[in-house]
Amino acid sequence: MKKLLILSLLISTALCAQSEDEIQVKKIYDAALLNGQSYQWLDYLSNSIGGRLSGSKNAEKAVKWGEKELKDLGLDKVWLQPVMVPKWERGNPEEAHIASSSGNVKVPICALGGSIATAKNGLTAEVIEVKGFEELEGLGEEKVKGKIVFYNRPMQANLINTFQAYGGCVNQRYAGAMEAAKYGAVGVIVRSMSLSMDDLPHTGSMSYGETPVSKRIPAAAISTNGAELLSKMLKEDKKTRFYFKQNCEQFEDVLSYNVIGQITGSEFPNEIMVVGGHLDSWDLGDGSHDDGAGVVQSMEVLRLFKKTGYRPKRTIRVVLFMNEENGLRGGRKYAEVAKEKGEKHIFALESDAGGFTPRGFSFDCNDANFAQVERWRPLFKPYLIHFFEKGGSGADIGPLKDENIVLAGLRPDSQRYFDHHHAANDTFDAVHKRELELGAATMTALVYLFDKYGTVQNIKAKIKG
Amino acid sequence: MKKLLILSLLISTALCAQSEDEIQVKKIYDAALLNGQSYQWLDYLSNSIGGRLSGSKNAEKAVKWGEKELKDLGLDKVWLQPVMVPKWERGNPEEAHIASSSGNVKVPICALGGSIATAKNGLTAEVIEVKGFEELEGLGEEKVKGKIVFYNRPMQANLINTFQAYGGCVNQRYAGAMEAAKYGAVGVIVRSMSLSMDDLPHTGSMSYGETPVSKRIPAAAISTNGAELLSKMLKEDKKTRFYFKQNCEQFEDVLSYNVIGQITGSEFPNEIMVVGGHLDSWDLGDGSHDDGAGVVQSMEVLRLFKKTGYRPKRTIRVVLFMNEENGLRGGRKYAEVAKEKGEKHIFALESDAGGFTPRGFSFDCNDANFAQVERWRPLFKPYLIHFFEKGGSGADIGPLKDENIVLAGLRPDSQRYFDHHHAANDTFDAVHKRELELGAATMTALVYLFDKYGTVQNIKAKIKG
Repeated sequence: MKKLLILSLLISTALCAQSEDEIQVKKIYDAALLNGQSYQWLDYLSNSIGGRLSGSKNAEKAVKWGEKELKDLGLDKVWLQPVMVPKWERGNPEEAHIASSSGNVKVPICALGGSIATAKNGLTAEVIEVKGFEELEGLGEEKVKGKIVFYNRPMQANLINTFQAYGGCVNQRYAGAMEAAKYGAVGVIVRSMSLSMDDLPHTGSMSYGETPVSKRIPAAAISTNGAELLSKMLKEDKKTRFYFKQNCEQFEDVLSYNVIGQITGSEFPNEIMVVGGHLDSWDLGDGSHDDGAGVVQSMEVLRLFKKTGYRPKRTIRVVLFMNEENGLRGGRKYAEVAKEKGEKHIFALESDAGGFTPRGFSFDCNDANFAQVERWRPLFKPYLIHFFEKGGSGADIGPLKDENIVLAGLRPDSQRYFDHHHAANDTFDAVHKRELELGAATMTALVYLFDKYGTVQNIKAKIKG
Repeated sequence: MKKLLILSLLISTALCAQSEDEIQVKKIYDAALLNGQSYQWLDYLSNSIGGRLSGSKNAEKAVKWGEKELKDLGLDKVWLQPVMVPKWERGNPEEAHIASSSGNVKVPICALGGSIATAKNGLTAEVIEVKGFEELEGLGEEKVKGKIVFYNRPMQANLINTFQAYGGCVNQRYAGAMEAAKYGAVGVIVRSMSLSMDDLPHTGSMSYGETPVSKRIPAAAISTNGAELLSKMLKEDKKTRFYFKQNCEQFEDVLSYNVIGQITGSEFPNEIMVVGGHLDSWDLGDGSHDDGAGVVQSMEVLRLFKKTGYRPKRTIRVVLFMNEENGLRGGRKYAEVAKEKGEKHIFALESDAGGFTPRGFSFDCNDANFAQVERWRPLFKPYLIHFFEKGGSGADIGPLKDENIVLAGLRPDSQRYFDHHHAANDTFDAVHKRELELGAATMTALVYLFDKYGTVQNIKAKIKG
């Protein structure tokens, strides 16, 4: 009976208020498209600050900028949450060439984030090409020792969701060095995680895992065109040698911050909803798609509530997380503090998949909450938002996961994302104003609905109460 | 009872064959994404041929290229369909400035397609700004005579479908000159049909309607930034004068061609399905999105059938229409010849809305056929194709319309389209390989389904028979 009551309550609130919701959602989209702020914010973050790797001067600047902009919005509370973050620096531009009998051919590479440097004069060795760890294991120490391991498993072009193609390759980048080191390799070159054939190397985080310091080997990414060329030259001559030089360095951890602002709920101030993206970025581009877009869209959510005159019932927090790219320290710190304080988080949404045309959301939640979301579908149809699936959410909000929270991730069109991801062309000009604004509006509409209706757990608790 | 029979036949064929269809659709997408040809074709059409306005040398080259490529595909039949087309030339680059007390400010303009030239030394006059024809009528001859009418109604940014925003403005471009001439205006300047604020003027067709030759006035488009500036300067000084010079010219009609290729149906060769785009383009860019994309996607449909080993039951024709932009002569000719020959067309699909990520289709058909399409939705879901709505199809296939045909238009993401439409930046680099290929695959999947199941009219006719 109680179940039936809950169900009918859910359905009736959904049905009766439909037209009020339609009006509010339209207001949100209109405000985002006619008087949006996200694009102008991104212009500043990308073009006046630029790439902002954790621990860098630019990351500090971004923290100050975020704090100031949130204060200017007139939120109820804005604060910085201290967090220690790793500091890694690329150093001088990397150099690399393929050495063959007919001369040296320069190829574009970049050090992977977290990698050690090569010797001062660089590293030259023969190359062994593999498509993955099983193949590497099969070759064993005999074939690998003293060589550079070249991971060349491409992203699968026939997967429609490019994140799935990325997921199928990224272990080469993340764990390639620790695996190759087991067999005595002296260095690692990884094909860039991109579906585009071009001359841009894509960086990204890597880990040495449990590899002792003395056994760590340098790791770099090579452009997709470079990878094709190297593979071709290896087929022609197995003795082809590769040279690369990088002088990147890992420093002591430094103090940084998550930037947080909130509108305190008018009815249920202790029920917290988070919307966020990550403020840090890789250093090669200006981090416009990853994740400048998510940062400004999240800020825009709170601005749009104010602009449309909607006073939230629950507390809405924007969190600009630090250090998603190479440590996730910000996301972990936020969850840790929330737990310490006994804060009740009911919903968290992250935008960290690029600033392209939004298609919908992925939800990490129970069936009852997903069923509620499904009932909201018609509200999104006029805005061509159609993708509502169960799945992952966002790295930064992941640590908040428990049985009482709904986690969600914005899912924009993914076709162009990995052309730019972690590369020098992740820049402002690759973000389209309307696409960015539509993403912000779509996020705001979802937060509005969770604010108004709560999660199924909330409703149950209130009925019990 | 007959109705029930038809319904159950439709449903059972849809259900039973689902898994066969799923397999074929997957084959189509895999072939398009792993071994597609559309992007390479577009590279040639855009970069080796370029902009190809009807009647131009490049349009001739494009016809020859299309014919050769279709022949190379090993189709059952390839031919050229003669059609007389208008020939208009832009001539020398246009010039324009806003003349104010503090000096002349240059602004980017371009002649509208079909416009007459200004006098050799250009045209200078005071400007009257309007937002539309009603406002113009209200002003009347007294306020308009001797002036340049400046149409400055912008596209509405809060419309999600940018084609709708375009539809709400384009009468200014198409009919602006004939309306202004009624009140004695001496020239027309139209705000470019774009949602982007930039320095690119966007051309497009205009008509003088019934305006006698002696009363025709020159018409040009001004960039959106130029329009904003002109409007601002007019607010400051109503006496602000505008100067522009263009020496475009309309010539006698010339002979051109629709390029047609077909795979003849194995079971129902007399049931014809058309897939097409238009081969002509405006002259400022290279016409990559409008409509190079539609041309190569349509060619790719037939290539994908061959590559996936699917032998169509019905006749599938690719038609590369000539002269969509400024006359629609190719589309009209194709329909006229089809009628003369008594050909039975059951389905036609056009791609002429850009090469961006496909979202679905718009259908111009009866309810029964639309219901059939709706039942195919699940087949498209894995490819994020969700948009199936009744509406328009494509200009070139419009003349085929009768009660027995299903007309459809591919509907890609529209957010970026009008940034490029008819402007100098409609170029190859603005087309994304995967997005283009996904469009071709999506079209192929739909043609496959119509080939396999026919239209509801077909099925009824067969049951009656």
